[in-house]
Amino acid sequence: MKAILVGFGFIGRSLVKTIRLKKNTLNLIDKEFKLVGVSDLDGYLYNEKGLSLEKLASINEIPEYSPNFLMEKSSLELIEKCDADIMIETTPTNIEDGKPGLTHMEKALSKGMHVVTSNKGPLVVEFKKLVNLSKEMGVEFKYEATVAGALPIFSLVNECLQGDEILRISGILNGTANYILSKMYFEGTSFELTLKEAQERGITESDPTYDIEGIDAACKVVILANAIMKRDVRFKDVKRVGIKRITPEAVNLAKQSGYVIKLIGTIDKNLEVAPKLIPETHPLCVHGTLNVLHLETDLAKVITIIGYGAGRETVSAMVNDIISVIKKRN
Amino acid sequence: MKAILVGFGFIGRSLVKTIRLKKNTLNLIDKEFKLVGVSDLDGYLYNEKGLSLEKLASINEIPEYSPNFLMEKSSLELIEKCDADIMIETTPTNIEDGKPGLTHMEKALSKGMHVVTSNKGPLVVEFKKLVNLSKEMGVEFKYEATVAGALPIFSLVNECLQGDEILRISGILNGTANYILSKMYFEGTSFELTLKEAQERGITESDPTYDIEGIDAACKVVILANAIMKRDVRFKDVKRVGIKRITPEAVNLAKQSGYVIKLIGTIDKNLEVAPKLIPETHPLCVHGTLNVLHLETDLAKVITIIGYGAGRETVSAMVNDIISVIKKRN
Repeated sequence: MKAILVGFGFIGRSLVKTIRLKKNTLNLIDKEFKLVGVSDLDGYLYNEKGLSLEKLASINEIPEYSPNFLMEKSSLELIEKCDADIMIETTPTNIEDGKPGLTHMEKALSKGMHVVTSNKGPLVVEFKKLVNLSKEMGVEFKYEATVAGALPIFSLVNECLQGDEILRISGILNGTANYILSKMYFEGTSFELTLKEAQERGITESDPTYDIEGIDAACKVVILANAIMKRDVRFKDVKRVGIKRITPEAVNLAKQSGYVIKLIGTIDKNLEVAPKLIPETHPLCVHGTLNVLHLETDLAKVITIIGYGAGRETVSAMVNDIISVIKKRN
Repeated sequence: MKAILVGFGFIGRSLVKTIRLKKNTLNLIDKEFKLVGVSDLDGYLYNEKGLSLEKLASINEIPEYSPNFLMEKSSLELIEKCDADIMIETTPTNIEDGKPGLTHMEKALSKGMHVVTSNKGPLVVEFKKLVNLSKEMGVEFKYEATVAGALPIFSLVNECLQGDEILRISGILNGTANYILSKMYFEGTSFELTLKEAQERGITESDPTYDIEGIDAACKVVILANAIMKRDVRFKDVKRVGIKRITPEAVNLAKQSGYVIKLIGTIDKNLEVAPKLIPETHPLCVHGTLNVLHLETDLAKVITIIGYGAGRETVSAMVNDIISVIKKRN
């Protein structure tokens, strides 16, 4: 299979490094697997014979790879012109209109390409449309990395709990908010001070609104509800309360009774992201930047899965998606 | 596909009830799926047109189903004579020589039948032999329910972490031992008293040796090492310490420093089952009868999964195995 990578930011570059590292594993499944194109906002690079993973893994900007970099040409043109089987989309999330990822995905799926993505935006905006388009075109659409990073929630439900009906999902879906709440719990610090410290350590974005207002977690609630619970919901359907009004006094009061305040996303009849009191001995109660998803089902009753929700660990989910597509469709 | 069920104890009966409950789900994948035979120690029942799931789900002993029950005929004869595609093996675990399950599995695999099982014994004794036989015959051999019950560890590794190298596995693999240790932790009771209470509540067997000596957990360490880490190890290779020497004083001392004593199975260079101090905030620290597995990998770094390790929840894993076999081989 031939793949193109659209988006060469932190996740895109980490993925290239990992594909290089796992070249033997991938070639055991498909000895023809190669990366033939890569693009970012500035332009693209394409070689139908395959790009050098060694070289790509060593650079930070695509033009460093080759003078053949096509400046001012769009990713969309790469998708249109390329002869590839699979598009890996890692452009930044935009939850307003999903662009440019949404445009890339619609174009790739319409062309009959499989899509693997880490980009939440298009799924928050047009999940059903994208899934229907992939079905119509008979191609794979994989998005494991969009929710809870390395934690493989979609393949867990689809491959490991095939007989179970999922009745309810709850979880910690944002590592930054969890880092702040964990720190407040262990150290008794104020929200403002803890946020500042997290910003200084580079754990949160310079604008932390998406994390602390529960917006990022709500996006994941939308995707989980649509993908796992077969709902047809949008961002506006999620009731949402953030964490900035949580005081050290509230954290301490909970702690005295054996509870921890956590920002929990819930998918049942209602969709919600809000701070909740979790017993400190409950499997949902994980700390630091970890994410967790807790499934309530008819057969297994409860299954909880914990892992890193962001960072380079996310490539684990993307590589698994890529391997799944190759195994199923090669 | 036609299936036979060998073993009609608690798990076998629970599975029949679940197959009946999930009939529509199964028939969506394979409208010809039916149970054509069922056996226990006393004999078997066989009807190539299919047995009534409604009737089977309502009985406790096979002879209640029909006067056609063949007394004193062996399960082995059913396996030999039947025209079925898949054997579901749920006879009791015997870790000495694996029988009778081992004989059943060898016979079924040799005949070209797929095997789905909850029976640890044969896998502890002859894992490699059974896997090689299934490969040789080109059939599926699925054993999700043998380790940690409903917790789908093998499909998690095989389907959700396909690009990851598993570097180390640790976990709580016996619900009874975990129940006792949790109770000692929360209530400060002695081991003897807690064990007695667990026995009265029916949580442990009348002979609790396998649970409290770590024998059951060691069996699971053997299977995990062979199946996931591609080792070739036996029960005797597991270093093993049980929990009966753990005093309330030791539990309390650990608690004062934020630790909990848990019976942990570990698979890395060495294989071990032994009580360990686990920080109370670590994902491995789950309580009651829950089981947990904690994977350390090269890409995702850490993935922890928690669920019930025994009881009727185990059928979740068996149904998933059955669906996987049907989807792959029908």
